[in-house]
Amino acid sequence: MPNLAPPITTVRHALNYRRQLQELEPDVTFLMSLYLHPSITPETVKDAKGAGITGIKSYPHGVTTHSDQGVMSYEEFYPVFEAMERENMILNIHGELPPSAGEDITVLSAEEAFLPTFLDLHHRFPKLRIILEHCTSAAAIKAVNSCGPNVAATITSHHLFMIVDDWAGDPHCFCKPVAKLPSDRRALLEAAVSGDPKFFLGTDSAPHPAVSKRADKYAAGVFTQPHAVGLVIDALEQGIYTGVLKADDVTKEKLEGFLSGHGRAFYGVTDDRHEKIVLKRSGVRIAKSLRSDDGTVEVVPFRRDKLTWHVEWQRT
Amino acid sequence: MPNLAPPITTVRHALNYRRQLQELEPDVTFLMSLYLHPSITPETVKDAKGAGITGIKSYPHGVTTHSDQGVMSYEEFYPVFEAMERENMILNIHGELPPSAGEDITVLSAEEAFLPTFLDLHHRFPKLRIILEHCTSAAAIKAVNSCGPNVAATITSHHLFMIVDDWAGDPHCFCKPVAKLPSDRRALLEAAVSGDPKFFLGTDSAPHPAVSKRADKYAAGVFTQPHAVGLVIDALEQGIYTGVLKADDVTKEKLEGFLSGHGRAFYGVTDDRHEKIVLKRSGVRIAKSLRSDDGTVEVVPFRRDKLTWHVEWQRT
Repeated sequence: MPNLAPPITTVRHALNYRRQLQELEPDVTFLMSLYLHPSITPETVKDAKGAGITGIKSYPHGVTTHSDQGVMSYEEFYPVFEAMERENMILNIHGELPPSAGEDITVLSAEEAFLPTFLDLHHRFPKLRIILEHCTSAAAIKAVNSCGPNVAATITSHHLFMIVDDWAGDPHCFCKPVAKLPSDRRALLEAAVSGDPKFFLGTDSAPHPAVSKRADKYAAGVFTQPHAVGLVIDALEQGIYTGVLKADDVTKEKLEGFLSGHGRAFYGVTDDRHEKIVLKRSGVRIAKSLRSDDGTVEVVPFRRDKLTWHVEWQRT
Repeated sequence: MPNLAPPITTVRHALNYRRQLQELEPDVTFLMSLYLHPSITPETVKDAKGAGITGIKSYPHGVTTHSDQGVMSYEEFYPVFEAMERENMILNIHGELPPSAGEDITVLSAEEAFLPTFLDLHHRFPKLRIILEHCTSAAAIKAVNSCGPNVAATITSHHLFMIVDDWAGDPHCFCKPVAKLPSDRRALLEAAVSGDPKFFLGTDSAPHPAVSKRADKYAAGVFTQPHAVGLVIDALEQGIYTGVLKADDVTKEKLEGFLSGHGRAFYGVTDDRHEKIVLKRSGVRIAKSLRSDDGTVEVVPFRRDKLTWHVEWQRT
């Protein structure tokens, strides 16, 4: 996620950031992206591709954390998108129209209101690989389904759980895009177990300090690490329990696709690690609260103090 | 508001509570109401009327503060409503269906989903005086308009300001019923200046301690005292500024009706105080935060640190 402060808008910044991440987690493969910004040119795209950067992420102006330098209008970026199409890079989109775009756009309608722009981009750049990130609505699922195979969407573990009632009164459930209606959650659950390679997990996990959550104006973001995979299984179980899904809908193959296979295929990342995960039911209780090693920063995880599936890593 | 802990379900409790309030504010006329509860019988209604109690308020189960003893179904109360109709008492309704009533009912649809129940009550008890309290939706305004003259609705000063985006991320703007869409706010603003005696101000001001707002699960309620009247004027000004209202829509007569005349008329309270208020523009800044006299309790008011109209009381 390139929405740091300052945003990651240069190849050098992205590579420095990857180096920092790699030092923390040497065994993880990080796919880097730039922040779509007026300083990015077709040349930047070419350089980025050459340096192994995977994508560019677009944050419409003012819709989420550190989006104050985000996109006001896409037209100025058409040459960048052309270059991305040519270089086979991925355009990652936070798909919401900003509130300023019209007085009737609210946090509830901002994603659906963005879909015509999204579809227009797909029609203008039909070979550009686009991911509609952390989509939250039945309308978004339908729009993504109407596109060609080079357009996909990610779904977070928390959006598989939540509706508007969950974040009404709970800052730890508040994120952008916000969770919407039961009908939207149903569409997300159905997409997650559809087996369709267009849909895969994208956690969008954001560890905001608890002090910025228990506040007069609180930050948007939900922290689902390190239980993101377990949470997906919990959400599907809840989907079965509430009659939205049938138990038969959830197969090992579909889970493997949603959790890793579809994403790998879309990003063109091969699986050469010979690892698998084993899921064990109700193995672990999510912490009520987490603290940084030095004790100064507290973060409250999603579904604090609830049981979740235990995930065990195995070499194969 | 009888939703104290424990709720006010007896005449004796209501009279004690009135005495306490009267000691704090000897010059205010308090109109008392009971909490609709299985212990209330047609005899309670008769006693209440005799003791000068004005109404009975219904809180559907689980929709707001201290509503855990609220109504599950209205049918058991039909004899109570018959007695209220006979005694000319007012049924004050918090008009939301509880979430348990159906999985597709959310905080956004709970009021609209309640309207068929509301209209059914009006048709069963056509002379029962009913107030749909703190209504928040265009659908509610329409429903109240479709009823006879003994059905009215109150509108709060904060709902004249807010939409869903205002409480998304701000616990001090979160109340039940929640603020909804721009189209709903438009309908409320139009009703407030319609001059229609069915609509009048009901502040529903709730001073929750700030610690219960800056919290992992925060309380519902917005604190608009002591600026409720100034806030109404601010909201109408904002309505004019954003093109929802025309300046000509807001006359002194309509304001007088919305702020006091319509409510007085509906409650049958005569105006024998010979007082008036004079409104002065931008006279006062709302506090960032308020503290109880002993300093132990902090409350954050609505539109903290914003300018509002100054209200001056005058004897006539």
